[in-house]
Amino acid sequence: MRTQTSALRSRHLLGIEPLSPEEITLILDTAEGFKEVSERPVKKVPALRGQLVINLFMEASTRTRVSFEIAEKRLSADTLNFAASGSSVEKGETLIDTAENLMAMHPDMIVIRHKHPGAPKMLADRLPASIINAGDGAHEHPTQALLDAFTIRERFGRLAGLNISIIGDIAHSRVVRSNIHLLTKMKANVTIAAPPTLIPAEIEKMGVRVVHSLDEAIEGADVVMMLRIQLERQGKLSFPSLREYYNTFGLTPERLRRANRNAIVMHPGPMNRGVEIASDVADNAERSVILQQVTNGVAVRMAVLYLLGGAHVVE
Amino acid sequence: MRTQTSALRSRHLLGIEPLSPEEITLILDTAEGFKEVSERPVKKVPALRGQLVINLFMEASTRTRVSFEIAEKRLSADTLNFAASGSSVEKGETLIDTAENLMAMHPDMIVIRHKHPGAPKMLADRLPASIINAGDGAHEHPTQALLDAFTIRERFGRLAGLNISIIGDIAHSRVVRSNIHLLTKMKANVTIAAPPTLIPAEIEKMGVRVVHSLDEAIEGADVVMMLRIQLERQGKLSFPSLREYYNTFGLTPERLRRANRNAIVMHPGPMNRGVEIASDVADNAERSVILQQVTNGVAVRMAVLYLLGGAHVVE
Amino acid sequence: MRTQTSALRSRHLLGIEPLSPEEITLILDTAEGFKEVSERPVKKVPALRGQLVINLFMEASTRTRVSFEIAEKRLSADTLNFAASGSSVEKGETLIDTAENLMAMHPDMIVIRHKHPGAPKMLADRLPASIINAGDGAHEHPTQALLDAFTIRERFGRLAGLNISIIGDIAHSRVVRSNIHLLTKMKANVTIAAPPTLIPAEIEKMGVRVVHSLDEAIEGADVVMMLRIQLERQGKLSFPSLREYYNTFGLTPERLRRANRNAIVMHPGPMNRGVEIASDVADNAERSVILQQVTNGVAVRMAVLYLLGGAHVVE
Repeated sequence: MRTQTSALRSRHLLGIEPLSPEEITLILDTAEGFKEVSERPVKKVPALRGQLVINLFMEASTRTRVSFEIAEKRLSADTLNFAASGSSVEKGETLIDTAENLMAMHPDMIVIRHKHPGAPKMLADRLPASIINAGDGAHEHPTQALLDAFTIRERFGRLAGLNISIIGDIAHSRVVRSNIHLLTKMKANVTIAAPPTLIPAEIEKMGVRVVHSLDEAIEGADVVMMLRIQLERQGKLSFPSLREYYNTFGLTPERLRRANRNAIVMHPGPMNRGVEIASDVADNAERSVILQQVTNGVAVRMAVLYLLGGAHVVE
Repeated sequence: MRTQTSALRSRHLLGIEPLSPEEITLILDTAEGFKEVSERPVKKVPALRGQLVINLFMEASTRTRVSFEIAEKRLSADTLNFAASGSSVEKGETLIDTAENLMAMHPDMIVIRHKHPGAPKMLADRLPASIINAGDGAHEHPTQALLDAFTIRERFGRLAGLNISIIGDIAHSRVVRSNIHLLTKMKANVTIAAPPTLIPAEIEKMGVRVVHSLDEAIEGADVVMMLRIQLERQGKLSFPSLREYYNTFGLTPERLRRANRNAIVMHPGPMNRGVEIASDVADNAERSVILQQVTNGVAVRMAVLYLLGGAHVVE
Repeated sequence: MRTQTSALRSRHLLGIEPLSPEEITLILDTAEGFKEVSERPVKKVPALRGQLVINLFMEASTRTRVSFEIAEKRLSADTLNFAASGSSVEKGETLIDTAENLMAMHPDMIVIRHKHPGAPKMLADRLPASIINAGDGAHEHPTQALLDAFTIRERFGRLAGLNISIIGDIAHSRVVRSNIHLLTKMKANVTIAAPPTLIPAEIEKMGVRVVHSLDEAIEGADVVMMLRIQLERQGKLSFPSLREYYNTFGLTPERLRRANRNAIVMHPGPMNRGVEIASDVADNAERSVILQQVTNGVAVRMAVLYLLGGAHVVE
């Protein structure tokens, strides 16, 4: 598991797709070191002192924005939050104009969440700052996949060869796309399961097995990753009712018994208890690593900021 | 007035009710030292450097949130503001899930304001961070009572034996509940006055005298503490009109003459001028200590953060 | 271009009108030094360490608020953002009460944006903190004029004798008022052009030439400063349509040819592309200095904060 590389090739993190397995391993190894920082009484290192990171969140977010902001502060960066509301965006300014204006103030890095797939790439093509994708439409959410991988590796010591099942709203999820990229690169066996209307066409081409029942997906799994039903996003539900969804795709303690003996349960949050996951599963101290995912999110984001910010200084 | 104790027993500040008189005195004595910091050119001490304080404000607030944030920065803590709007709370996440997610990022302290009485206690029962109650429903608002006590003590040199009258919307006020707990513990004589509909049943059991006219309350008072008519909270007024309220319970210069010769006037803010208090009283430089209350709020909150954060580091 | 003075006479920056040419030059010279700080890997100097700056923005703003916040952080000040929404302002508190409450927490400086002309002066008359006007109604926006002047001087080495044309919504613009004050003090020749309904009465008394066609304004200009059509402000348009406005007062590459050979194009942003300015002009790397204006905004605001904050410490 030792890394073969000591730097990322790109100064941006736009997605998992462009990363090599060695780069993924570098980020995870670096995050291990930073995880310890958050457990000290003085939770701070001077790595990014005097650097400016702008958090450009054009979509509502809690844990991702907060997690990045904490990671930035623990690296001693100056942080600036910029949200869509109450801003010139409401006066009709384009994303490019907003970004070029922010760039003119010389930030070192911009963390962006945007509803349009490709928005981070558009900035990366035009701006000298390092761009970190914090979620772009249904495209990618790379730091989420990295923190998921960190959490799995922390428990099993490896990713290769594990059976990982991802269950839920595959069609609308950037989390699942980034996870499939990462896990297949790292030689894990990925199975996805969802109602037919929530599975995108040709998803098998990404190298995953598709099944249509929850039981089949859980059978023999080492990792059961439940996705959020994004009620606020769909407009209307792609299935008859939440109760119906829970009955067929909700993870209950009974269903979880089909998984392997040491299987863990993951969820990117926020959870809909009683929709995609039973509270008894979510709160199961032995199985559920949902809060460890959150903890590891700070460490992984510190690693990404450090590796990109450090590169920036060296250049 | 010297304190008999050098540490708080709890690592949380959930209310005044659980505090001993010695603990209250410790906080006030500690705040005296911190008040001086805010008057320096460099308004900063390194006490909480590298510690993370999350301000979790689930109800709108100005001065309390700002006061805490300034206190945190003057102690060199890293601060993170988390509000209800634009967050996963709007996606239906429970307070416990939100708090456990925040906790997973290892904050040292969480300052919480919430509309439900007991919300801070619920967090304190579940999370390893120190919890500071910044107002929970109509239950308690302990730092407000502490800054009020600090302000009174600063003027009179003591709390014991003073005649303190609290006038206004007793029924909906967490400020008054915390103040009654504190002032009775410190042996002050507390009188409350309000229209009958704004006095909760059995309030006398808290050790206060209840009167129903403003003049009776002011007669012989050392401290006249006016409460805010919380127009936005009541839905409908419990009295005929604001004019009517002012005529019977508004503090005017004439009415204030019944108070003792050195009496002071307090108000937790924001004031409704011409409703519960006349502008001539609010702006009376000799009587009104309303802005001193605000100044002292920063010092008292620094003391609380320091005493709880210090304890946290030692453990 | 060396300055004759080493300090500002006032501890506030309420507008350009009260400044002397020497004070303007002092600010611009000081900003030159600070511009370099934003280009370092460690973009930070300790000038305002331990000082508190409150950004009191009672009107929506992006670039100005962000620019000030970055300037404050690069000077190592503690910053606190205070917006109208979600605050006690919504509970009906007056601006004076809000400001006095903030003042009671001992900020060193308050940066204020407010819809009412004179709001910054009202604070300056009452509060011991240094007040910086970040835009008050249609009155002044002094740091915008200073950054514009900095940008012009950077390109031409001087302000005196230049032909500067300002085109657009003169009537509703605080930017243009501050610019006219500054540019006429510095002996530039100022021409303004707009549809008749967007030119205030008696504007010639400010020492500017008024023309009613775009071509006439551009003829022989060294600087063409386009103003934003503030769609959200006017309620209803003072001209038939946006298309009509573009046809008569929009800056196109063809029209720009009437300007002097080295002429530059400025815009305070955010731009309405295709309304007051063509994209081809806005993005013309040789002519357009619009993004340099944004960059210089941080340097100019650092200079203002430094000169006022430094004065504050010395006193």
